[in-house]
Amino acid sequence: MPLFPLRISSLVKPGHSLLSRFSSHGPRPFASRRFFYGYISDTKMAPQLEPFFKQVDSSSETFIDRLRKAVAIPSVSAQDENRKDVFRMAQFLADELKALGAEVEQRPLGKQPGKEHLDLPPVVVARYGNDKNKRTILVYGHYDVQPALKEDGWATEPFELTIDEKGRMFGRGSTDDKGPVLGWLNVIEAHRKAGVEMPVNLLCCFEGMEEYGSEGLDDFIQAEAKHYFKDTDAVCISDNYWLGTEKPCLTYGLRGCNYYSVSISGPAQDLHSGVFGGSAHEPMTDLVNVLSKLVDAQGNILIPGLMDLVAPLTEEEKALYPNISYTMDNLHESLGSETGIHPTKERTLMARWRYPSLSIHGVEGAYSAPGAKTVIPAKVIGKFSIRTVPNMESADVNKLVFDHIKAEFAKLNSKNTLDVWLQHDGKWWVASPKHWNFTAASKAVEQVFGVEPDMTREGGSIPVTLTFEQATGKNVLLLPMGSSTDAAHSINEKLDRRNYIEGTKLLGAYLHYVAEEPTSA
Amino acid sequence: MPLFPLRISSLVKPGHSLLSRFSSHGPRPFASRRFFYGYISDTKMAPQLEPFFKQVDSSSETFIDRLRKAVAIPSVSAQDENRKDVFRMAQFLADELKALGAEVEQRPLGKQPGKEHLDLPPVVVARYGNDKNKRTILVYGHYDVQPALKEDGWATEPFELTIDEKGRMFGRGSTDDKGPVLGWLNVIEAHRKAGVEMPVNLLCCFEGMEEYGSEGLDDFIQAEAKHYFKDTDAVCISDNYWLGTEKPCLTYGLRGCNYYSVSISGPAQDLHSGVFGGSAHEPMTDLVNVLSKLVDAQGNILIPGLMDLVAPLTEEEKALYPNISYTMDNLHESLGSETGIHPTKERTLMARWRYPSLSIHGVEGAYSAPGAKTVIPAKVIGKFSIRTVPNMESADVNKLVFDHIKAEFAKLNSKNTLDVWLQHDGKWWVASPKHWNFTAASKAVEQVFGVEPDMTREGGSIPVTLTFEQATGKNVLLLPMGSSTDAAHSINEKLDRRNYIEGTKLLGAYLHYVAEEPTSA
Repeated sequence: MPLFPLRISSLVKPGHSLLSRFSSHGPRPFASRRFFYGYISDTKMAPQLEPFFKQVDSSSETFIDRLRKAVAIPSVSAQDENRKDVFRMAQFLADELKALGAEVEQRPLGKQPGKEHLDLPPVVVARYGNDKNKRTILVYGHYDVQPALKEDGWATEPFELTIDEKGRMFGRGSTDDKGPVLGWLNVIEAHRKAGVEMPVNLLCCFEGMEEYGSEGLDDFIQAEAKHYFKDTDAVCISDNYWLGTEKPCLTYGLRGCNYYSVSISGPAQDLHSGVFGGSAHEPMTDLVNVLSKLVDAQGNILIPGLMDLVAPLTEEEKALYPNISYTMDNLHESLGSETGIHPTKERTLMARWRYPSLSIHGVEGAYSAPGAKTVIPAKVIGKFSIRTVPNMESADVNKLVFDHIKAEFAKLNSKNTLDVWLQHDGKWWVASPKHWNFTAASKAVEQVFGVEPDMTREGGSIPVTLTFEQATGKNVLLLPMGSSTDAAHSINEKLDRRNYIEGTKLLGAYLHYVAEEPTSA
Repeated sequence: MPLFPLRISSLVKPGHSLLSRFSSHGPRPFASRRFFYGYISDTKMAPQLEPFFKQVDSSSETFIDRLRKAVAIPSVSAQDENRKDVFRMAQFLADELKALGAEVEQRPLGKQPGKEHLDLPPVVVARYGNDKNKRTILVYGHYDVQPALKEDGWATEPFELTIDEKGRMFGRGSTDDKGPVLGWLNVIEAHRKAGVEMPVNLLCCFEGMEEYGSEGLDDFIQAEAKHYFKDTDAVCISDNYWLGTEKPCLTYGLRGCNYYSVSISGPAQDLHSGVFGGSAHEPMTDLVNVLSKLVDAQGNILIPGLMDLVAPLTEEEKALYPNISYTMDNLHESLGSETGIHPTKERTLMARWRYPSLSIHGVEGAYSAPGAKTVIPAKVIGKFSIRTVPNMESADVNKLVFDHIKAEFAKLNSKNTLDVWLQHDGKWWVASPKHWNFTAASKAVEQVFGVEPDMTREGGSIPVTLTFEQATGKNVLLLPMGSSTDAAHSINEKLDRRNYIEGTKLLGAYLHYVAEEPTSA
């Protein structure tokens, strides 16, 4: 297998709009970087990015039309009446992939647990290329969407892709996650039209239940890890977002989440506060007291021993933060208020990414409607969760939580009954950002956008990330297409035309650099 | 106006079942008490209780049939579709009263505020007797009922009066408040049939919106105080319950209620706890903290200065408690648990009746459903109320509450925004249990049930009580007919046959003693 230098500096066009818009960072012409030695199949020439990029530009209306067709299918997984549309969307994807020359299967997942009148939507799996001398990249996305109604406050019809003068393409699923999913199809199409060989074998895993808990997917991935997905060399997931609006990022970490319920019960039924107020222990009084002992107003977790589980901050890690394109104004804008806890962006991002947090979500069983009701609830269940980070093991966290809550409740000398349990947990995930999978993606960002990407983590969890890592044993990369302003899950969801078209280039370029990266990285 | 002794000892029948069942207290033959000097009209003989009582016994099936007809009308004021039935019930009452010889009017209250497509049910007012030489007693009750569906768990059809072998008469409204309302009609009927003159003029005020906030009633009472109700010498309300199941009570006090909302807001919209947990001040964290500073697990109110507003316990008042027929088992039975705070019945009843209490009812805006949602609510509103007692003035209570909450919130150093306000207040009420209105009722209880009544207060509020007192300036007595096990507002509401029939005797006897009590008492 010959290795040869791929000179990409030729692709850099001085004054290219995408480069020049990052003038504050300064354009970073690719030529200034070292040459790369690719991992190339057989004796063929390395595929070239320039014709691919050109083809993406000239096919852009076709690609937008593909997104328009996809958005028009209301594949809302959470609503029974739309289940047929979710299946229709699976068929659409399968048809498109087949037309592009991929081998496609729609894999059934059986009945929906708890809703046995519904079939789960299939996982659409596809293979494009089967060359043993190429790397195989497994890409994941989802083709179902969040619910959307015009009357929720959408400015446009949610299931009609509507493009405004700024190139914002509004529509449910545009950014989450139909745009990124179609990005992979666009990559295949542009290669075929440009006559450029795909540099890797591509395996696709597109699910239809992501917005409803990815029912059935974990088992499917585990089962196929040594079968359909067995050739996988690395995994790429495009289902998150840039930190801001201008600078792409690669995401190498996610926090986990341990979700708890703490129940306090006393009387056999709800009581009238006039009759019983003052003479009976009130579960809500006890609960409020216990919940107030979990976290202080500055976000400090009050559970003894919990912070000792957190991996210490290293100088190396600390050094990553100052360069990240994020400001306190970004925080205030996303909050819609200036109620951030920390004074600097570094501390803010660390609090979000690499330290645990504890949020109290609400109370079940108490009076929650507007107005005034004088009930003493008989049983109340407080809900809170802890976002976990390295090296917090779930079992250790649980023990500290349970012990602390029991101790605080005991101090109350209440005759009520306490119960506390874990509702669910999901582990944190941190990948090595020095793996070739990340290096390739970094180079692709630099090539397409002219900037080094932010290396980010996220505060939330994307459970499928860890599932892929554990099932395949391979490196997983999160490579987002959309920006922080895309309003996924909200009204007026959109994907910018630039993010979609340049994002398609990014996904393609990533595959080329993946093909070229040395294994040792 | 001649005054003459009414010797009622002749009415005591040794071995009478109602007397003998109170053997633990021992029958208290009326003959052992002093003679009473009545306030009698013109030259007529005082009406006799014996023929009235006999007539009630012999008319009992007629009276039960009257209740059966009333229960069959589903006069649910909270449900739009039953509004016609509420009107039907008003008509039923008006017809019955008219047939008994009363002057009756159905007074319209206009449209229902906020539901202008609905007319408020009328107040049925009636006058029976207009003798200037007799006292005039204004009686209040309500003819609307709580909602009820068989499928809520009723053992019988809720709107079919069903009598079991123990004499329990099940049906919605049986005890709350159709039984007591019809009690007054039964009293008139029994007098007429027995040929006994009514000892007082009776004014009736029966409303049809009590279970839905008595919309419009306060204004009506204020407006009629110097008109329809102008002759009122005292007021009697039968719309509460005995403390237990065997011993009647007279109720001379109610706690008031100040209901508060405390709102804490921060971000412009709900946040994802993964993304923002740890980097933004969370309103729910602050709220839980503030709420935990209001009351401790032993029911002690933590608001500085609040307890200083409470009238001190006098020795005289303290002496009332030991004799009251109540046990800790009664408390545990009604709680369905042994989660009472205080070790003795005296402290329990004082906590319920004569000390304030603070209950936290719930949180609006936080996650309240079953399951797990990882939201950070943007704005949460805690609801709590303080049951007030003499001599707590609402304005003083508000100031202490607001100051305390603001001070506790300030300690948190949160950037969120606090707001706290009073949703509504209702003043406590305490009448003089030595007023002739109470003395008369006490004698009536002793006459009918052979025991001295418990002199009770209630922890809850019956706002119309205070309205009548303030509007008429007269003494108001709460004279319950039903027992503590009647399950008003719950499934399987019932009124015991004994409580209904002996209760009718009680209401009639009360009117006779009212006629005889000296004004100075």
